[in-house]
Amino acid sequence: MSKYRSIPHNFEGEELESVFVGRRDGAARPTVILIPTVMGVSDLEKGFGRQLVELGYNSLVADLFGKKFHGAPRDTMFGEMNRLKSDRAALLRRMQHVLELARGQSEVQGDHIVVAGYCFGGMCALDLARSGADVLAAVSFHGLFDPPGLPAQKIKAKVVAFHGWDDPMVPPEKVVALGQELTDGGSDWQIHAYGHVGHGFTNPHAASLQIEGVAYNELAAERSWTSFVNLLEEVFG
Amino acid sequence: MSKYRSIPHNFEGEELESVFVGRRDGAARPTVILIPTVMGVSDLEKGFGRQLVELGYNSLVADLFGKKFHGAPRDTMFGEMNRLKSDRAALLRRMQHVLELARGQSEVQGDHIVVAGYCFGGMCALDLARSGADVLAAVSFHGLFDPPGLPAQKIKAKVVAFHGWDDPMVPPEKVVALGQELTDGGSDWQIHAYGHVGHGFTNPHAASLQIEGVAYNELAAERSWTSFVNLLEEVFG
Repeated sequence: MSKYRSIPHNFEGEELESVFVGRRDGAARPTVILIPTVMGVSDLEKGFGRQLVELGYNSLVADLFGKKFHGAPRDTMFGEMNRLKSDRAALLRRMQHVLELARGQSEVQGDHIVVAGYCFGGMCALDLARSGADVLAAVSFHGLFDPPGLPAQKIKAKVVAFHGWDDPMVPPEKVVALGQELTDGGSDWQIHAYGHVGHGFTNPHAASLQIEGVAYNELAAERSWTSFVNLLEEVFG
Repeated sequence: MSKYRSIPHNFEGEELESVFVGRRDGAARPTVILIPTVMGVSDLEKGFGRQLVELGYNSLVADLFGKKFHGAPRDTMFGEMNRLKSDRAALLRRMQHVLELARGQSEVQGDHIVVAGYCFGGMCALDLARSGADVLAAVSFHGLFDPPGLPAQKIKAKVVAFHGWDDPMVPPEKVVALGQELTDGGSDWQIHAYGHVGHGFTNPHAASLQIEGVAYNELAAERSWTSFVNLLEEVFG
């Protein structure tokens, strides 16, 4: 029912390659931009994209790291992630580029876009919302909450964070801080916290990263997906 | 489709009168015990009970305050609530009595019971879970999180708290404390926090209580109800 289409693109001199997931009819639909984990575009996010297509939406799985890192080993990808995280203003430009890329696709209804990300990608989705970007919602699955240190903007997107309470990278004080930050930003926001759940809970292969506190949790994966689908129904109508 | 049936009962010498909401066929079904707000059994909870019947469940709207307080004014009810809150061991016995009352009804599948409460009633639902009671889930809608100060038990129920982040009675530190308490109790738990939402958000008449920070919020009411229904599907199957 769904098909993949590669989209080569260029950001500030780097070659990237994202993946569009849509129906064969090529019709314009509400679209979810999916921002992958530290490991970059993988079958995980493409699978979520296919699920979204089943629900009647399109999806763009965004490459933030660049073509030359496709299939790179874990340590290389963590190095790249840290490089991107070290300049949040540049990372925001990268996210704005991805948003424009999505808007440029004929299958995308430009005023019906949601951005959702996983782990590092969750932080990127939050950063786009924090910038005041014109998207309907920004969703973080086990994302990092650290604020970008950029001038605060009025947040237009509805923000939802699905969070494992035992996530070693996001302790309770960061949850409280995000609540305060989003309240100050005027955002319509939700945080769904799951007990006994760590980082990476949507990823059945999370354990392969071999990081303490990073593990798949089927129940949290299902609950967050169900709530995500509820949100898409709310914003896409 | 649904009908009400009054259930007179007696707890430690007090006369109470709860309301059963079910179908005319009188068949045994999974059942949700609803614990009202400080104002006691009202059309609000009976309405939620009717919605549950539409979904295929039964509902028992529990009277915790007693027959003589039906229709009593606000100040009287707050006084009674504070009286009940001042002895959490006795309040727990009251909740255990309500659970047994529910189990004694022919329309109730005794091993398919969820307890859910509003405001003060949310605290009562949490207290029942905290006691290790054998219910499938305990749900708090804008409930109070203060721990009962009773010996900790292994929590068997799945716990979900729907919480307005701006609730003046439940500041962020109490949310963090509940997360820790439920984690220590071994419970499968979730907290759904809603930004820019105060206390009493499911109650269209919340403003009539004339308390700062207590207000209806249609979006939070809808989101929490949708997530509640998802939970019932999860636990009742």
